Amino acid sequence: MRLTPRDTRFFDLLTTAAGNLVTGAGLLTELISVPMAEREKVAQLMHDTEHLGDDATQEIMLQLNTSFITPFDRQDIQLLASRIDDVLDDMDEAADLAVLYRIEQFPPGVEALVELLGRAATLTAEAMPGMRKVTELSAFWEEINAIEDQADGVYRRLLAHLFNTDGADPLTVMKTKEVIDRLESAADAFEHVADVVQTIAVKES
Amino acid sequence: MRLTPRDTRFFDLLTTAAGNLVTGAGLLTELISVPMAEREKVAQLMHDTEHLGDDATQEIMLQLNTSFITPFDRQDIQLLASRIDDVLDDMDEAADLAVLYRIEQFPPGVEALVELLGRAATLTAEAMPGMRKVTELSAFWEEINAIEDQADGVYRRLLAHLFNTDGADPLTVMKTKEVIDRLESAADAFEHVADVVQTIAVKES
Amino acid sequence: MRLTPRDTRFFDLLTTAAGNLVTGAGLLTELISVPMAEREKVAQLMHDTEHLGDDATQEIMLQLNTSFITPFDRQDIQLLASRIDDVLDDMDEAADLAVLYRIEQFPPGVEALVELLGRAATLTAEAMPGMRKVTELSAFWEEINAIEDQADGVYRRLLAHLFNTDGADPLTVMKTKEVIDRLESAADAFEHVADVVQTIAVKES
Repeated sequence: MRLTPRDTRFFDLLTTAAGNLVTGAGLLTELISVPMAEREKVAQLMHDTEHLGDDATQEIMLQLNTSFITPFDRQDIQLLASRIDDVLDDMDEAADLAVLYRIEQFPPGVEALVELLGRAATLTAEAMPGMRKVTELSAFWEEINAIEDQADGVYRRLLAHLFNTDGADPLTVMKTKEVIDRLESAADAFEHVADVVQTIAVKES
Repeated sequence: MRLTPRDTRFFDLLTTAAGNLVTGAGLLTELISVPMAEREKVAQLMHDTEHLGDDATQEIMLQLNTSFITPFDRQDIQLLASRIDDVLDDMDEAADLAVLYRIEQFPPGVEALVELLGRAATLTAEAMPGMRKVTELSAFWEEINAIEDQADGVYRRLLAHLFNTDGADPLTVMKTKEVIDRLESAADAFEHVADVVQTIAVKES
Repeated sequence: MRLTPRDTRFFDLLTTAAGNLVTGAGLLTELISVPMAEREKVAQLMHDTEHLGDDATQEIMLQLNTSFITPFDRQDIQLLASRIDDVLDDMDEAADLAVLYRIEQFPPGVEALVELLGRAATLTAEAMPGMRKVTELSAFWEEINAIEDQADGVYRRLLAHLFNTDGADPLTVMKTKEVIDRLESAADAFEHVADVVQTIAVKES
């Protein structure tokens, strides 16, 4: 069976959408390493990336509405695009809140969480062209699940450290928690992307 | 094609369910404007509305189980009813927590958030009869998405103001945040309603 | 119609998975009654149970991929397994956070919340063999919905008490809230399990 150009369009669009996650994860790395004064610029770049993500999602929806044949169930492609978008929303919110709350210092360990997001983003971007043979992507969803598990552990230790530090200022703790909650939520969101891929694979098998 | 009475029943029931959201949003407007002593009465009315919502949902489920033909996939109608119910649950929780926590003063900006919920409720109630021609409802889900986007911005500024106010009492901040979190969650829940409508439209197109 | 061994396999696996929820709820009861020094041991047992849950979920996924015929839509079985897993994840997180945050004392009322989780777990474990006649399980999802409703009420009163106690330490309030949030989330997760069962019943009816 040869793939027609129309078929490959969906894989290209999903690959583009997932590529934005790699950009987003890179911006998060910058966000937590630059001085506070430069964070707003990084958050703005994140916002631009989030808009590119919205465009990619809309393009996928448009293709769904105008294509006679789609490689998978329409609603599964829609769900996958929407789940990829959710990841970028979480990243964008994390960056936005870091600026809004004027977080002075990120707690030690936050870079480990951001690094895990970077790995999940790369794996997702690499998996999307492979959607052509979705039943062979089990390594992808297993690795994403393992990363989510690790992210969860890092997150809990971050919180324990944050809450158990003597003399911690409650409002600072709350604000910092809001930001790292969004990072943990992004890790969960990657798992939801992987779940949709697994669901499609179950249907195709 | 003529619609049979059985077919129109689902659209009527969804319209009724969405009508409760308009009532709920109106009660939220009252909640944040009446003196603290009268809030419990408003929260009780909200609770009554939430029960009407449960009844509407149950009626839809019953119709699904007893109808031979349904205008869309059964599970999509079920999901739509359940998503409408979720909005009312969030509104009810916001009202309930405002009373339970004895919030003395809502932060400036909360009325903007409630107003957006009112607009989303009206749009949803107006869209439900239009489900007959669901593929023509793209303006609905686009507007709801735009409102959710605005609500998100208002919410973040509300939080920033709440957290960054000098000398803020941490417990008061936490309690207030809980209430406005439920309002933001209601805005998200409207988007989830719109997502289901869009999903149905994709299938029908 | 006689069920083939292959068919009964799914019901057995779902029953096993739901059985882990009964174990989990039992461990939560222990967690809130043992002295603080023994909590880590209970949390470890919970973690072991959560791994058993993961194994059960994986076994179901494997069966889905290797079975030619399944009693319900593959993706519904997958979703049900995943929703059961979510309950155990919440229970595990609650136990983990109670240890990590070194919660000295649980607020009065938390045992009522845990008891409701125990009832929901027992109902779920009893319902799974009955999936063979899923359309007859309406009592199950109605009872779970009623339990979730009660859990919600208990949860809100717990929070009101926690926040409105004079001289409460903000960080202690935050940490305690995190743990009871996970318990409330477990109650919600039971409702999501019941929702999937109801969805399957709607399709089968």
